[in-house]
Amino acid sequence: MMLPKGNYPEKIYVNGEIFSSENAKISVFDRGFLFGDGIYEVMMQLENGIFYKKAHFDRLQSNLNKIGIDYAVEEIESELDNLISASSLTDKACLIYIQVTRGIAPRKHSYPKGVSASVMMYTLPYSLPLVNPTHMKSILTADFRWHRCDIKSTSLLGNIMTNESAVSANANEATLVRQGLVTEGSHSNIFFVKDGKVITHPANEHILDGITRRIVIGLCKDLNLPVIEQAVAETDIEQMDEAFFTGTTTQVASIAELGRHVFYRNDQVGEVTRNLQRAFSELRSRDTALVDLGLR
Amino acid sequence: MMLPKGNYPEKIYVNGEIFSSENAKISVFDRGFLFGDGIYEVMMQLENGIFYKKAHFDRLQSNLNKIGIDYAVEEIESELDNLISASSLTDKACLIYIQVTRGIAPRKHSYPKGVSASVMMYTLPYSLPLVNPTHMKSILTADFRWHRCDIKSTSLLGNIMTNESAVSANANEATLVRQGLVTEGSHSNIFFVKDGKVITHPANEHILDGITRRIVIGLCKDLNLPVIEQAVAETDIEQMDEAFFTGTTTQVASIAELGRHVFYRNDQVGEVTRNLQRAFSELRSRDTALVDLGLR
Repeated sequence: MMLPKGNYPEKIYVNGEIFSSENAKISVFDRGFLFGDGIYEVMMQLENGIFYKKAHFDRLQSNLNKIGIDYAVEEIESELDNLISASSLTDKACLIYIQVTRGIAPRKHSYPKGVSASVMMYTLPYSLPLVNPTHMKSILTADFRWHRCDIKSTSLLGNIMTNESAVSANANEATLVRQGLVTEGSHSNIFFVKDGKVITHPANEHILDGITRRIVIGLCKDLNLPVIEQAVAETDIEQMDEAFFTGTTTQVASIAELGRHVFYRNDQVGEVTRNLQRAFSELRSRDTALVDLGLR
Repeated sequence: MMLPKGNYPEKIYVNGEIFSSENAKISVFDRGFLFGDGIYEVMMQLENGIFYKKAHFDRLQSNLNKIGIDYAVEEIESELDNLISASSLTDKACLIYIQVTRGIAPRKHSYPKGVSASVMMYTLPYSLPLVNPTHMKSILTADFRWHRCDIKSTSLLGNIMTNESAVSANANEATLVRQGLVTEGSHSNIFFVKDGKVITHPANEHILDGITRRIVIGLCKDLNLPVIEQAVAETDIEQMDEAFFTGTTTQVASIAELGRHVFYRNDQVGEVTRNLQRAFSELRSRDTALVDLGLR
């Protein structure tokens, strides 16, 4: 099968075997295809190995547990090493995508018994700059997603619809507002800065508890910046001094425009944002693979 | 590839070709697999052809339009005839499943340009009784799904999680409650009867506007039963005289128990429910394939 043009990974791991992108297929009866019944992770291999590898694997396991997919993520670790090697990406900068679905069964809503989970993963050469240079422009739009956004699931239609709204408006991201409160971006977390304090939505069922979000909260503590985990009202955005997005590939990205509010008309970046960007980039000189962020 | 045991369809249509269930596969880069980025329909072929075929195709088209998948469902119609024939199910009772996804592209949230939609469909021998004999038992559980339940999408994790809660509790269905109001079942609509009036949630973004829901509302009009499209509060369930689910394979199913409220301890079925079941079964003697239910 020919794939439509695009930058596909060279090698794709599917259930124990490695395929070319043209040949990487799954059954149409995989519940990932029929129901969006799966969990995923995106992580980065940087200079010092996989950035916060344990944190990502812990979250993957925790999410699989939340939706009752019976799978032990340890099984993936050695397979991932083989995939990176087969992809000629050992010690090279790359993005790692892992998706675990409930497995293959005739279509029926309830969970099938005695079925093995499906695992798909790939690596893609991907260089992250030390600091994200983008001055992000974001739309504000209604957060009409479900009420279990803490689950990093592949049932992502709400996320992609809001993301597409942003792209259609020539913006970099969509910032979501639920009942008047800012929750997160369509594929990133959002932070605000006000009077030297850092404010972000609490890690409850309305946002994904991002690994980068956790790391940045830790960096704030290192930098003696008070962190307030509280939702910011849409109407209070214009009172904020700075705002930034966080995410695995986004890292820490300064927000220049958010809805109708303009933080900066030029290439300025707020002081707190800049300090956090610098502190975040310094983490790359450390080996973070085994750091425990407590994501159970 | 061997599939886990189960009752799979014999023939599966995938993008213009017909495969055995073992060989029916899609690319792992299909956005149906990566993002739950697709729309589906389930319909029944009965004695007189495909039951409300036009209504199902109209809704499929309308849903594809809602999420910006550029595909004309007319293309499917002749392909479906071929599939039914290849499956030796011409004029036989069967279930028809159709899933259209946005297509194949490297993983990125926003909609890819210039990509063709993917179509998967199958038919499965399936006999529906004239009247659903089940005395349904349903749990009540929180409706934590998204706020675009009017879209019949394959991002179904919220539906399958709530359905699984029902199955775990030895119930037939989960009835969902959002902010104190009964919305619908995990894969059916719900109706109540009170003082001879039929009450169901309005067709807004919190429920799927079921084909069977529409048909039943029409039957109520034929039977001079007033229909009130208004949500019923969870706390008012015990005041209701009757309740029933509707759906393509559910048809009209009497509810015996709903949460802690018991409508019937024996095999009783309420008078209005029974009349609607009878009227619904009589539709099978008509040719409904081209009836326009106005689902645009």
